[in-house]
Amino acid sequence: MTPFPAHLDAGLLSPVRAGTPAEAAVGDGAWLQAMLDAEAGLARAQARCGTVPAAAARAITAAARAELLDVRQLALAARETANPVVALVKALTAVVAERSPQAAEFVHRGSTSQDVFDTGAMLVAARTLRLIVADLREAAAFLGDLAAAHRDTVMAGRTLALHAVPTTFGLKAAGWRELLLDAAERLERTARDGLPVALGGAAGTLAGYLSHAGEDADPAAVLEELGAAFAAETGLARPVLPWHALRTPIADLAAGLAHTAGALGKIAADVLVLVRTEVAEAAEPAVAGRGASSAMPHKRNPVLATLIRSAALQVPALAAVLHQCLSAEDERSAGVWHAEWQPLRECLRLTGGAAHTAVELARGLTVHPGRMRANLEATGGQLVSERVAAVLAPRLGKEAARALLTEASLGAAASGRPLAEVLAELPRLKGVLSREAAAALLDPAAYTGVAGPLVDRALADRSPGARQAVEPRPGTASSGVAGAHRAP
Amino acid sequence: MTPFPAHLDAGLLSPVRAGTPAEAAVGDGAWLQAMLDAEAGLARAQARCGTVPAAAARAITAAARAELLDVRQLALAARETANPVVALVKALTAVVAERSPQAAEFVHRGSTSQDVFDTGAMLVAARTLRLIVADLREAAAFLGDLAAAHRDTVMAGRTLALHAVPTTFGLKAAGWRELLLDAAERLERTARDGLPVALGGAAGTLAGYLSHAGEDADPAAVLEELGAAFAAETGLARPVLPWHALRTPIADLAAGLAHTAGALGKIAADVLVLVRTEVAEAAEPAVAGRGASSAMPHKRNPVLATLIRSAALQVPALAAVLHQCLSAEDERSAGVWHAEWQPLRECLRLTGGAAHTAVELARGLTVHPGRMRANLEATGGQLVSERVAAVLAPRLGKEAARALLTEASLGAAASGRPLAEVLAELPRLKGVLSREAAAALLDPAAYTGVAGPLVDRALADRSPGARQAVEPRPGTASSGVAGAHRAP
Amino acid sequence: MTPFPAHLDAGLLSPVRAGTPAEAAVGDGAWLQAMLDAEAGLARAQARCGTVPAAAARAITAAARAELLDVRQLALAARETANPVVALVKALTAVVAERSPQAAEFVHRGSTSQDVFDTGAMLVAARTLRLIVADLREAAAFLGDLAAAHRDTVMAGRTLALHAVPTTFGLKAAGWRELLLDAAERLERTARDGLPVALGGAAGTLAGYLSHAGEDADPAAVLEELGAAFAAETGLARPVLPWHALRTPIADLAAGLAHTAGALGKIAADVLVLVRTEVAEAAEPAVAGRGASSAMPHKRNPVLATLIRSAALQVPALAAVLHQCLSAEDERSAGVWHAEWQPLRECLRLTGGAAHTAVELARGLTVHPGRMRANLEATGGQLVSERVAAVLAPRLGKEAARALLTEASLGAAASGRPLAEVLAELPRLKGVLSREAAAALLDPAAYTGVAGPLVDRALADRSPGARQAVEPRPGTASSGVAGAHRAP
Amino acid sequence: MTPFPAHLDAGLLSPVRAGTPAEAAVGDGAWLQAMLDAEAGLARAQARCGTVPAAAARAITAAARAELLDVRQLALAARETANPVVALVKALTAVVAERSPQAAEFVHRGSTSQDVFDTGAMLVAARTLRLIVADLREAAAFLGDLAAAHRDTVMAGRTLALHAVPTTFGLKAAGWRELLLDAAERLERTARDGLPVALGGAAGTLAGYLSHAGEDADPAAVLEELGAAFAAETGLARPVLPWHALRTPIADLAAGLAHTAGALGKIAADVLVLVRTEVAEAAEPAVAGRGASSAMPHKRNPVLATLIRSAALQVPALAAVLHQCLSAEDERSAGVWHAEWQPLRECLRLTGGAAHTAVELARGLTVHPGRMRANLEATGGQLVSERVAAVLAPRLGKEAARALLTEASLGAAASGRPLAEVLAELPRLKGVLSREAAAALLDPAAYTGVAGPLVDRALADRSPGARQAVEPRPGTASSGVAGAHRAP
Repeated sequence: MTPFPAHLDAGLLSPVRAGTPAEAAVGDGAWLQAMLDAEAGLARAQARCGTVPAAAARAITAAARAELLDVRQLALAARETANPVVALVKALTAVVAERSPQAAEFVHRGSTSQDVFDTGAMLVAARTLRLIVADLREAAAFLGDLAAAHRDTVMAGRTLALHAVPTTFGLKAAGWRELLLDAAERLERTARDGLPVALGGAAGTLAGYLSHAGEDADPAAVLEELGAAFAAETGLARPVLPWHALRTPIADLAAGLAHTAGALGKIAADVLVLVRTEVAEAAEPAVAGRGASSAMPHKRNPVLATLIRSAALQVPALAAVLHQCLSAEDERSAGVWHAEWQPLRECLRLTGGAAHTAVELARGLTVHPGRMRANLEATGGQLVSERVAAVLAPRLGKEAARALLTEASLGAAASGRPLAEVLAELPRLKGVLSREAAAALLDPAAYTGVAGPLVDRALADRSPGARQAVEPRPGTASSGVAGAHRAP
Repeated sequence: MTPFPAHLDAGLLSPVRAGTPAEAAVGDGAWLQAMLDAEAGLARAQARCGTVPAAAARAITAAARAELLDVRQLALAARETANPVVALVKALTAVVAERSPQAAEFVHRGSTSQDVFDTGAMLVAARTLRLIVADLREAAAFLGDLAAAHRDTVMAGRTLALHAVPTTFGLKAAGWRELLLDAAERLERTARDGLPVALGGAAGTLAGYLSHAGEDADPAAVLEELGAAFAAETGLARPVLPWHALRTPIADLAAGLAHTAGALGKIAADVLVLVRTEVAEAAEPAVAGRGASSAMPHKRNPVLATLIRSAALQVPALAAVLHQCLSAEDERSAGVWHAEWQPLRECLRLTGGAAHTAVELARGLTVHPGRMRANLEATGGQLVSERVAAVLAPRLGKEAARALLTEASLGAAASGRPLAEVLAELPRLKGVLSREAAAALLDPAAYTGVAGPLVDRALADRSPGARQAVEPRPGTASSGVAGAHRAP
Repeated sequence: MTPFPAHLDAGLLSPVRAGTPAEAAVGDGAWLQAMLDAEAGLARAQARCGTVPAAAARAITAAARAELLDVRQLALAARETANPVVALVKALTAVVAERSPQAAEFVHRGSTSQDVFDTGAMLVAARTLRLIVADLREAAAFLGDLAAAHRDTVMAGRTLALHAVPTTFGLKAAGWRELLLDAAERLERTARDGLPVALGGAAGTLAGYLSHAGEDADPAAVLEELGAAFAAETGLARPVLPWHALRTPIADLAAGLAHTAGALGKIAADVLVLVRTEVAEAAEPAVAGRGASSAMPHKRNPVLATLIRSAALQVPALAAVLHQCLSAEDERSAGVWHAEWQPLRECLRLTGGAAHTAVELARGLTVHPGRMRANLEATGGQLVSERVAAVLAPRLGKEAARALLTEASLGAAASGRPLAEVLAELPRLKGVLSREAAAALLDPAAYTGVAGPLVDRALADRSPGARQAVEPRPGTASSGVAGAHRAP
Repeated sequence: MTPFPAHLDAGLLSPVRAGTPAEAAVGDGAWLQAMLDAEAGLARAQARCGTVPAAAARAITAAARAELLDVRQLALAARETANPVVALVKALTAVVAERSPQAAEFVHRGSTSQDVFDTGAMLVAARTLRLIVADLREAAAFLGDLAAAHRDTVMAGRTLALHAVPTTFGLKAAGWRELLLDAAERLERTARDGLPVALGGAAGTLAGYLSHAGEDADPAAVLEELGAAFAAETGLARPVLPWHALRTPIADLAAGLAHTAGALGKIAADVLVLVRTEVAEAAEPAVAGRGASSAMPHKRNPVLATLIRSAALQVPALAAVLHQCLSAEDERSAGVWHAEWQPLRECLRLTGGAAHTAVELARGLTVHPGRMRANLEATGGQLVSERVAAVLAPRLGKEAARALLTEASLGAAASGRPLAEVLAELPRLKGVLSREAAAALLDPAAYTGVAGPLVDRALADRSPGARQAVEPRPGTASSGVAGAHRAP
């Protein structure tokens, strides 16, 4: 076997994304291709505007293929110039020149490294967000099915690690779905009109582009035409201003990805409670070989939730780096721009991997209603004591009722007897609450509040028919980005 | 003087917010009042639904005044229950009981600590966002004035700490404005429909509320009516589901505040370059006593930018805590919910303080066009070398032109002679570029690209007349929050 | 009741520290006093060196009392100068002048704001670390008692949320203790020689101090004498160089406090598993009123672990701000220094509050060995399957033994029968493993490995007699700090 | 050219580490080899203890070569088990079995995934820390040379972005050196006794190892012998307790790497001020092709400082993830352990890359004393106004002297006249301060305080002769780690 170069990463330390589509969408090869797409799109846009010959744009487009360049050499060369684009331009120019020396003159014409890098980054983001949103919506659909199927499956609601009052698994699953849809909507909003082309030239004035447009060119017209053409060629949005140093698109990505990772992390956190040996109310999908331990033959580890949680613990801090990088000096910062690149990729990759993993989790999650019911009984009805307190309050006063239930609960817990029995024996409740009445009040299934209607409400709210979130809302350009153009 | 209690904070370590409106909107007194407003609003909402007597709701509303409670005692009591609401309910009940024993029975009826705390937090957020957005818009207006006034004020564009090509101060100011407006729009979106009431009861099923609605109550109707009434009474939005453990509103606040702090930090970073002794292209507003040093009589420190930057360095990390807290287990986490409170306040307070500081900075920033012009000359025209390379490219080829300019620039820098002179003497440019032509090409003012049209474009985009972002867009409820109701 | 000013913080949102000693050690009043102590210490040090009259130093010391100044006014004034020291010097000078006009001339002589602020911060840190370390050691002592008492209390070891193999509660408690002692040692190391006086003057050259030492003063001698005297007067260490912009002490504090908060967070995370309703292997100390819910009368929430976890979720991000602030430009940064203050205090306060809370938790934690035993039985012996696999491996081969146990475990889990029974019936184990032998092998108490010796080893390692970590190791000055001097 | 797989990383987005030794020390290939080294070391340790045949240990060692396994397949397989070790064991066993079926039975004997992964991680850390410390010490040596050479090179001290009082470049360089040495010492301390083997077995009790030691084995003896042997075989330290869930080593690495990255970031931040076009007091080493811009032929970008800063902006947040991961539940957390891996590698790689880059920067930094002097004059002597205030204070009173200087400084700045002239004309200074005396007082070179002695002190403190920090201090094992054993 050819030795694997020691310096490469193949996902060994990041199983949450190894082999997922998001990984392939953001790796070095994919990122390089996206930057080449930016160069090619720029040449075609300039051809539309008449400042680059159409044949040259075609030649550049044909040459702009990642497999013709050496990723590692570009990475090494980037140390000399603090970004990979200088060497990329040189290498791309050489490839073009082999085929068409004339066309080589038009590579990167009037441009600057950041235009190419950032446009490439937005293409990578657009492609990855599409994958993530699709996974979120698929996971949400499975969760919607779970919520509907378990609309009335009673289980213990848990707060501060303890049984609180009953809830339903349907409500829990509907909540997970809601959170994923919240995250998906935000990512879609960003994908729709928050990922702009970068077109500023050396310091954001487009002077280089303008100088190639001829002496008589009307600056305002060049600005409009070239901007529109570049957006059209790349399928990205068009910003109000060059955003080399105005990083709203990065902030939006940071926010959306941190939200998404957190939403997925919430599901993982809940699943990791439900699968605990003592709880056992749910299990991850059973797959041969999945969840094996290197030491313990009996274990079927909850690996999907584990992987998702591992991503959710990393993304917020990486997103904070991106938010920190908003505070960059000058027309292009020395180091702050550069600090964005790897964290942005990691945020995309970890979140994408986690979303993909969540589809599998949501699709195959096994729910054990019988065990839920058994666990509900574990405290002898105590988790419905709130209800009894409410019923007694009009008679005894709110505080007295509460104190009585606290006392009875402690007594029941200490003696191991059912709360209904303890209550019925209390002198103060003589004639107020029979044992039968107490038992009926303490039936968990009778105290799920509006859990059912909440599930109905949630599933109705964003069902496929209820809205079409993917569709652009015409005329609502936002975030300093106007006139979003989508690739066909 | 009464000794100041050692444990209290009065802003001594956080001058960026000391004395600003945001500080007063989020302090313990303000937070307590907001939680009391939540209790009162809940009672009134229940009165609307007929489950609490109107007189009791009035009595509770009248008693729900922060000055009647002891903040410090509540803070200390919170250690026993891990939140301040348990003691607040007890104390409020006592105040109500003094005036109306009957009404006391209806305090916090069917409710849970988190409903009150979170609704209070959303009220605090709503009040503070209003202040922040107003400050952002005011600062943006001043920046718009600067951009218009300096539309054609040429200055050095700077990248990687060095002069790059010329730009204009107008474009820089327009960029600052754009970034603030981006941030403001996101905060407004959240303020408009992203701050919901919390209404879930003990574990998110509203069972407690329902049990007080009478045995015959229709759960779905109670859900709709009580939810709508509580939203109406508080002016907050109504969520699709109880969000005790679905923290989209917190994620949105984290994202918007990190974005805003970063946008303000970008302005501060730029100002701190421009005011440097050697650069001196701008100065902070001169105010008597402002910027004094305890050691150096001659200094007028850029204190406003300093304060803003101090906030921008803190908020992203605090926002990351909030994003991290999305991953919370159960219907209410043991510790994760609790970890949100102080970081949320700090994010609001620091960002609010920074925004308020930025108004002052934007209003009074002094710009020195003469110094900008002088600095442009400092490199003998080198920063326009890109232009000469572009002009020579058709004759010499792109690479050769570039190499020639690199060589000439180094020569000019080494000898201290103007680049135009060095270029004119090059044998290869004999007959190609006269000294006069070179000098004309190297005039910085003639190489600002489309800076002017960009300023026009930016100022037209979001001028007060161009859109009315504060207005709600009817029917566009988002983020799991439907039917935003605003207080009258 | 006097209304509580809306802007003040009294700990309402941070119960983990409300009322704890650390809170009082770092609040604005305490911080102000520490800065005044720095001013007084500096005057006395200068008096030792003969550059300030002894009477003036005494007068300044007498006047340097926080209760004589108005904290809020200083906080507000700090907005004008970006730090509170300028106004503090003015106010202190006025107080001194009232008593001794001559002495007033010697306040803050030759000094700069940062010398006073940073020295004050180190005094605050020293005082708070002392509290934290004492709490850590006290908690560790209680945990040591628990470890000894439960050296052989068998319980399920849990990995990836599932029962793994048996362990003992003694080993778990010994691990908690070890982690706290690790953290305590690091804090002690910092407290011992990592908290230096700040003495640099306006830009770190001590020029101001030197200019007051007279024209003939030998600079090297002034440096040595004044540095030594200031360290002696404050009880802080003496740095090799002024550290205005060399923030090793802040980095050490960040590291130590993040470690400590994380160590405490680990204990909280474990306790929150053990107290879960379904697990119930431990309980927080029972205290009247503690852990009450505003809704649910039966609950006794694990509030101590909840509070500790809330701190552990915040401190790492705040420590990251401090680490980020190492990258500060110039002799004093515009904003980076200022961004340290509040996060440093929060790190101290949250960690201190959590440590104090942990003492209570460790002192009163209730352990339920019976429940531990019962939970061990829950899986019918499966959690000892690793052992059976090891025993069978020599006969069947490692992989085959493992596969057999995996299969038998799944079968036992599916049928609900004891694993020993299922194993004994397997044809392949006919004559290899009797039911009795299987049962003996599957006894959890017989498979705790070296848990006992590990507890012995851990308790012996850092018992009070085994080392005296508080004692300075002479001659081992580190971290750019030489010759630590401690207050008498 | 073979297409580069889209999913691989070759450093394209992280030029700070591309091609540096640290990168090769932590890549997937290196990490895999380290885990194999752990497996082999464990087998040899067990052979020492007599529980594995020596021949088997030799066979395992011979087979434990990364080039015999497929990294990508292991990465993909890790998704099934949430860590790469399960598949690694299987693959390694297969390789061993091909050569020696008997030996294959002894692969991973009694072990668990985390023992192998964590031991491998510590080996990676040990190897990378060695590289980082060497680079830090080499950079520090170059900085020491700079400090000595420029001991008396006067330059403007800068605070809050403005000229403050004079300092020397020697003091600045000495400060940079001090900070690097502080960081290096901390990393060395960790490398020396803070990187322990992981040896716990399935749940930290070593039960699996013990079960293979025979029925009569004395548990305490097995613990001591096996632990000592494994430490000896790997050259790592021996922990007091298994640290699967007690993550002090990770916390120490996080702290040391964040400190180091910040120390390097401080240097970068300063260099980026000094190289600014208007300041021009220093320049990065000139290297052909280095610092080229894709747009601007004249630029020589400060790429080294830019790369270093890009790392310094990322590491603190990544270290915060590691600190956060201390709070892990159970004997092995579901997800928290897994979240450490990639951030730990990134911290090592970014810091290592930055340290390597800093050597080049420190070695070749060009200093321009003439420009420093010229910049000092830029404010007409104002930056020495503190000194004049001190001289006048005894005559006019401190406050009055200060006010006078403030006024005169403003006047000088407004009129552009030298401060000495303005002062000499002030009526109040008639007969007090002649123009000549004022000019002499305002000579920057005469007001550098103790900068020279400070440089001497710093260089003496940690010169190669002054201490030998690499040597272990015998008997001072710390951090829960005893008896550090180093590889020969």
